[in-house]
Amino acid sequence: MSRQTIACWDIYEFSAQGPSGGNPFLDVSFDAEFSLGNRRIKVPGFYDGDGTYRVRFCPDTTGDWDMRTYSDAEELDGLTDGFTVTEARKGVHGPVRVRNRYHFAYADGTAYKPFGTTCYAWTHQPLEMQAETLKTLETAGFNKIRMGVFPKSYPYNANPALHAIFEKTGPGEAEMDFDRPNPEAFRHFETQIGKLAEMGIEADVILFHPYDRWGYADMSAEQDCRFLKYLAARISAYRNVWWSLANEYDFLLNTKPMELWHRFFHVLEENDHLQHLRSIHNGNPALNYDHRLPWVTHVCIQHWDVKQTPLWRDAYGKPVINDEPEYEGNLYQSWGNISAEELTHRFWITTVRGGYAGHGETYNDPDDLIWWAKGGKLHGEAWKRIKFLRELLEQDVEHGLEPMGSYYAFPFGRISAGMDGENGTRFIYFGEHQPARWTTGLPADGGEYDVDLIDTWAMTIEPAKIVEAHVPPPTRHGNVTRGGVADADFGVELPGRPRLALRIRPRQT
Amino acid sequence: MSRQTIACWDIYEFSAQGPSGGNPFLDVSFDAEFSLGNRRIKVPGFYDGDGTYRVRFCPDTTGDWDMRTYSDAEELDGLTDGFTVTEARKGVHGPVRVRNRYHFAYADGTAYKPFGTTCYAWTHQPLEMQAETLKTLETAGFNKIRMGVFPKSYPYNANPALHAIFEKTGPGEAEMDFDRPNPEAFRHFETQIGKLAEMGIEADVILFHPYDRWGYADMSAEQDCRFLKYLAARISAYRNVWWSLANEYDFLLNTKPMELWHRFFHVLEENDHLQHLRSIHNGNPALNYDHRLPWVTHVCIQHWDVKQTPLWRDAYGKPVINDEPEYEGNLYQSWGNISAEELTHRFWITTVRGGYAGHGETYNDPDDLIWWAKGGKLHGEAWKRIKFLRELLEQDVEHGLEPMGSYYAFPFGRISAGMDGENGTRFIYFGEHQPARWTTGLPADGGEYDVDLIDTWAMTIEPAKIVEAHVPPPTRHGNVTRGGVADADFGVELPGRPRLALRIRPRQT
Repeated sequence: MSRQTIACWDIYEFSAQGPSGGNPFLDVSFDAEFSLGNRRIKVPGFYDGDGTYRVRFCPDTTGDWDMRTYSDAEELDGLTDGFTVTEARKGVHGPVRVRNRYHFAYADGTAYKPFGTTCYAWTHQPLEMQAETLKTLETAGFNKIRMGVFPKSYPYNANPALHAIFEKTGPGEAEMDFDRPNPEAFRHFETQIGKLAEMGIEADVILFHPYDRWGYADMSAEQDCRFLKYLAARISAYRNVWWSLANEYDFLLNTKPMELWHRFFHVLEENDHLQHLRSIHNGNPALNYDHRLPWVTHVCIQHWDVKQTPLWRDAYGKPVINDEPEYEGNLYQSWGNISAEELTHRFWITTVRGGYAGHGETYNDPDDLIWWAKGGKLHGEAWKRIKFLRELLEQDVEHGLEPMGSYYAFPFGRISAGMDGENGTRFIYFGEHQPARWTTGLPADGGEYDVDLIDTWAMTIEPAKIVEAHVPPPTRHGNVTRGGVADADFGVELPGRPRLALRIRPRQT
Repeated sequence: MSRQTIACWDIYEFSAQGPSGGNPFLDVSFDAEFSLGNRRIKVPGFYDGDGTYRVRFCPDTTGDWDMRTYSDAEELDGLTDGFTVTEARKGVHGPVRVRNRYHFAYADGTAYKPFGTTCYAWTHQPLEMQAETLKTLETAGFNKIRMGVFPKSYPYNANPALHAIFEKTGPGEAEMDFDRPNPEAFRHFETQIGKLAEMGIEADVILFHPYDRWGYADMSAEQDCRFLKYLAARISAYRNVWWSLANEYDFLLNTKPMELWHRFFHVLEENDHLQHLRSIHNGNPALNYDHRLPWVTHVCIQHWDVKQTPLWRDAYGKPVINDEPEYEGNLYQSWGNISAEELTHRFWITTVRGGYAGHGETYNDPDDLIWWAKGGKLHGEAWKRIKFLRELLEQDVEHGLEPMGSYYAFPFGRISAGMDGENGTRFIYFGEHQPARWTTGLPADGGEYDVDLIDTWAMTIEPAKIVEAHVPPPTRHGNVTRGGVADADFGVELPGRPRLALRIRPRQT
């Protein structure tokens, strides 16, 4: 048998036949150990139905790997294989990690800046609509998508789910044996994750949510943990997986207490050999999870006051993703009816203040085909501006934008300014502010810079009109005098309308 | 001698000649006791220069009052007078008090809703400009103005002050004897306060501020307290006075420690026989004074995130006035360059959430004639919309708007809804939200209501299109199911654009 060859960050899969009687999901243990030289990695396997057991592994290093299985079923124990891992395919960079404390990069060091959207239940829609979603995603400019394992029962989400996530026990859609996952449902889900991976889109997988009519939200703690282990065994090898423990976990606290949420994080830590990013998303703005806990890799948040982004960074010391700065649309629900201008505005504020925002689109549709839940087509205007913003960042930001000044230090609570790393490209976003002239935050080091004026709505970029630096007259503050000297080498004249930004790039010589 | 007659809430003034040698401001005590039946009120007098001593009193009750002076100067002690107080003149309602915990009313029970503007140094400008300011105020629609006793030295405020507040000791503008008030300066200041009173405009008098080149911010604690006592003796009898201890007191903390600010409040309590409203204004959003302290009557705040208004109400349990939700304009400084649309938006959010906002206008001017500091003419667009909002409130709101729901209870952190008292007119302001249809917050009591759609920018009011109430499908939140029934008797169809509001009035039958 010739040795299998796979590329780094692709998926190695081993399968074997084993017991199919009783409940193999509960009764049979099946794991594998992968090794390269003296390195050992334990990876859980899973039962895929019809007597088939599988284990999946995503190699992070080139070389000749070996594998050996462990099982309490004799025919599954002690099986071995070997495979050769070659360089990653072009465009494949591995899983996303935290880098520079508040930012992200792929495992190979390529910068990654999340510009995500939300299609909670897109994998539960009819297949034609799923194809349409993927087609939209090809050009929409998003590189992350929030999507649930479980289908969603909620306003505008009354249609049947494509698959039951557990084995059916009767004709009713809620009649399932929650101790027997339905491999077909998981196969479909991971197929779609795989397609997203090939498109360069991270799958921010939502594990639990309250919006349920099938009983998924009412499983026991043991069933929840087994579900997580099973899912981790199946999809951890997909390089583009992120774990989002819940959408709006706090609405489930009356049945899943806080210590159970902690436990869920640990189950993932124990069963995910790639240690994908982990976070959890709140509903009520007063009930954020304690994202300081060590098992949380980054902060997810839902809040409309995006100017607070630096405060959340400071509070938790991790990258901040505001999944729901409210969505563009006209729904009844107030999380889903802000204008396109406002969502664009909130993306700019969040981004320039050193965080990342999430997109959603929620326009009423006669057939309830709304992007935010079902995917399909985009109908709004914000996504184009978000794509434009992403392009600007990818062009010039390597380390990640760090907020300039502090929220409490004038004027940086009011306007937004960020710099790439310590001396890179700067963006200053004025939003609702419309100064006729600006200086603060521009360079003061005597260097050469290219300064452009950006209209964030019209998506135009033009050279900014450089003028003399503004010199604030000396101003007394008690016994301290401020001002009297310019705080930058030059100033910019602005056209006096809202929603403008400046880009300041060190001149390439 | 016939008995003098004055109207209630007007000013009774008694004067007498006394010592003029030495420093009468420091050396001579002069007070009076006013009595009506067994009631006794002690009122401090003041030295007005040229050997003249005065005491001013604002009667709150009709009847035959008596007065007797007390002084350590023999010729000023034991002087008596009597006067008859008649009903207040038409349109005169007395000083403003807190009513219904978070709101205001005049002493006679007439509701008062502050819609204030800011002209920090208008009384220090040339007299023609002061006349122009008063003319603008006649029709601008503001009923409160923030104005400093001391002139302002600050960007755009480099011109000389009209008067020295203390007696000059040399040609330089900072050469003054801070132990000798300049009566002429105070006479002018109180004359302008009197004109405002006749226009129905409250004078929110700012006592200290850091922006100074004359030495006013550097007086000793004793001089500060004597200045306050002198000012209180002079202007407390003006019914329209409010005390604002400082503009941006926190920028003075390095020379005036917190305990001194407490003391300033007490000096006013001790010397103001009308006990006018007292507050203090912050600079840094993290350094609000502790407005819970019993000597503070209402909260002044400076913050751009006006959606937090209900949080400030809850934190301090007093009326909230956001003096600076940032100003309309295009100045360099970010507190003074938001768009007219944005300031209008912030007024609506603040007001409907049960607070009050302050206006300022800060457009660049070749001669630095900027309304916010100097008065003169208004050039912007927000003031018209603020006037429109005030008219709406005065027409329909008696007790004061109370926020509906809570900041943390969906959807009231996101959109703004307020009701007059317990069962009065409601306003729902959508702002950047643009639902196609709305129900939450509309009446559910089976009553008859008139519902109007308001365009807050175009200032149009038209009957709203009433539709069936929105029935939210039942939604699971853990083991709680929400929705399934409408939360109001009817709904409204909306045109799907931002900056709209609803007014819901119990039908007059």
